[in-house]
Amino acid sequence: MFDLNAYRTQRRTEIEKALNRLLPAADTEPAVLHEAMRYAVFTGGKRLRPILSMAAAEACGAPAEDGLLPGCAVEILHTYTLVHDDLPCMDDDDERRGKPTVHVAYGETNAVLAGDALQALAFELVGRTPPTERWNAADTVRELAVAAGSQGVVGGQVADLGLSGRVPLAEEIAFIHEHKTADLFRAALRLGGMAANGAPERVEALGHYALNLGLAFQITDDLLDAPETGTRPDEASCLSVVDQDTARARAQQLVSDAIDALSVCDEVCTQPLAAIARYVPGRTH
Amino acid sequence: MFDLNAYRTQRRTEIEKALNRLLPAADTEPAVLHEAMRYAVFTGGKRLRPILSMAAAEACGAPAEDGLLPGCAVEILHTYTLVHDDLPCMDDDDERRGKPTVHVAYGETNAVLAGDALQALAFELVGRTPPTERWNAADTVRELAVAAGSQGVVGGQVADLGLSGRVPLAEEIAFIHEHKTADLFRAALRLGGMAANGAPERVEALGHYALNLGLAFQITDDLLDAPETGTRPDEASCLSVVDQDTARARAQQLVSDAIDALSVCDEVCTQPLAAIARYVPGRTH
Repeated sequence: MFDLNAYRTQRRTEIEKALNRLLPAADTEPAVLHEAMRYAVFTGGKRLRPILSMAAAEACGAPAEDGLLPGCAVEILHTYTLVHDDLPCMDDDDERRGKPTVHVAYGETNAVLAGDALQALAFELVGRTPPTERWNAADTVRELAVAAGSQGVVGGQVADLGLSGRVPLAEEIAFIHEHKTADLFRAALRLGGMAANGAPERVEALGHYALNLGLAFQITDDLLDAPETGTRPDEASCLSVVDQDTARARAQQLVSDAIDALSVCDEVCTQPLAAIARYVPGRTH
Repeated sequence: MFDLNAYRTQRRTEIEKALNRLLPAADTEPAVLHEAMRYAVFTGGKRLRPILSMAAAEACGAPAEDGLLPGCAVEILHTYTLVHDDLPCMDDDDERRGKPTVHVAYGETNAVLAGDALQALAFELVGRTPPTERWNAADTVRELAVAAGSQGVVGGQVADLGLSGRVPLAEEIAFIHEHKTADLFRAALRLGGMAANGAPERVEALGHYALNLGLAFQITDDLLDAPETGTRPDEASCLSVVDQDTARARAQQLVSDAIDALSVCDEVCTQPLAAIARYVPGRTH
C-alpha cells in the first residue's frame, strides 16, 4: 500500500531544502528585496506543484530528484502570482496562510518588485534544468513561459478580475480555471517529464493528467469555499453554474480521467501520481 | 562616413515590424490585457536596446537580423520595467512620452498584469533565439534572467526607491546606475553577440562596451534632467556627488573605454556600435 503522507513529507523536506538553496541569501544586497522574496516563498505552502514535478519524473522511470529543479521553478513562479494577486489593486488580501501578506509586511513597492524578481528567478532556474537527449532549455523555458503568460496564468487572472461581481458564464469559468490553475499544474508535470527525458507521448500524457487534476483541484477549492447553505456565489466558482452534487461527481470523473491518462507509463512508476489524484476529491484544505 | 541616423531609422523600422509580429494580437482573449501590453510597447520608444543587439550581431560578423529576436526580448523586458516603475506605489507617473501611462489608460490592475505578462513574453522570446555552435537557450535565458532579476534591474530599482529623498553616497549611485540601466544594456549586447555565434572573448568585449555605454548614457540622462542652475538634486544622479563638468568628462572617458573594448572585433563591423557610443555624450533627449 502506497503511503501518500510519508511520500509528501519526504518530498516537502527535499523541496524546502532546495528552495532555501536556490533563493538568494537574505543578507545579499538589496537585503530588503531578498528578505521579501524569502518571506513570500517560505510561508508553509503545500508544495503541491514541485511534488507533482518530482512524481512526474518518477512516472518516466527517472529518480524523483530529476524533477526537483523545474518543480522549484514552478513553485517560485506560483509564489510570485500569489504576491501580486494579494496586492491592494488586485484581491487586496491582508493575510495568507495566517500571516501578513508581502505588501503588508514589506510595503506595496517591495511586494511588486519581489514578485517581479521571483518571476525572473523562476525563468533562470527552469533554464538551468539539465538538458536530456530529448529536451533542452528552449523546451523548458517555452513550457513555463506559455503557462505563465498572457494566455496562461496572467490571462486567467485578468479574466477572473474582469467578472467584478457579476454571475459568470460556464465558459468564462472554464477559461479561468484552466488558465489560472491548471496551466501551472500542466507546466509542473510536463517539466518533470522533460527533466526525466520522458518520451513525447509520456510528456503529453502527463499534460492530460495535469489538466484533469488541475480542474478537479479547482472544483474541490470551490466546494471548500462554498457556504454550507449552498448559496451560489457570483464569482468564478463552478457552483455558480452547477449544484454541489454535480460538482462532486464532476471532480470524481476528472480524477478518473487523470489516472487513465497515465496508462502510457509503467504502473509501478505512477503510484505517487495516482495516489495524489485519488486524494484530491476528499481533501479538506 | 557612417550615417547613424539612416542606420537607426532602418533598424527601427525592422524592430517595430518584429515587435508587432511578436506581441499577441489585440483581439486575442483576454483582449484588454493584450491591448494594454501593445499600448505599453508601442509608445514611440527609441528602441536603443534592440538596435544595440542588432549592432552587436554585426560586430561579430553576422547579419544584424540575427540580433533582432533577442533584441526584441530585451525591449519587451525593458517595457515591463517601465510599466511597473510608473505605478502609483512606485514613481506614480501619469505620463510617459506625452501619453497616459498604462495604469492611467487601463487601470492599475491591468498595468500590473500587463507588466507581468510582458516579462513572461520576454523570456519566451529570448528562449526562442536559434541556438548556435557556441550558445543555446540555457545561455540566453540565464543572461536575461540575471540582468532582469533581484541583482539586476529589479535590484537597482529597489536601491533607487530606498533612497527616498536623502542624498545618496557615490557607491549607492554606482550600484543603481549599473543595475537599473547598464545591466539591460549588457544583456542586449551580449545576447546579440550570442545570437551571432560570437566567440566568448567577443561576447565579453561586448559586455564591457555595454557597461561603459550604459553608465555614460545614465550620466547624460542626469545632465539632461539637471536644472540649469546646477543645483545638486537629492536623488540617484551623478550630479549629487560631482559637478557638471566632471560628469561630462566622465561620460567622455566611458565612451572612449566603450569603443576601446571593441578592439577584439573587426573594425569595419563595429562602425555602428562606435557611432552609437560617440553620439551618447551629445544627445539631447
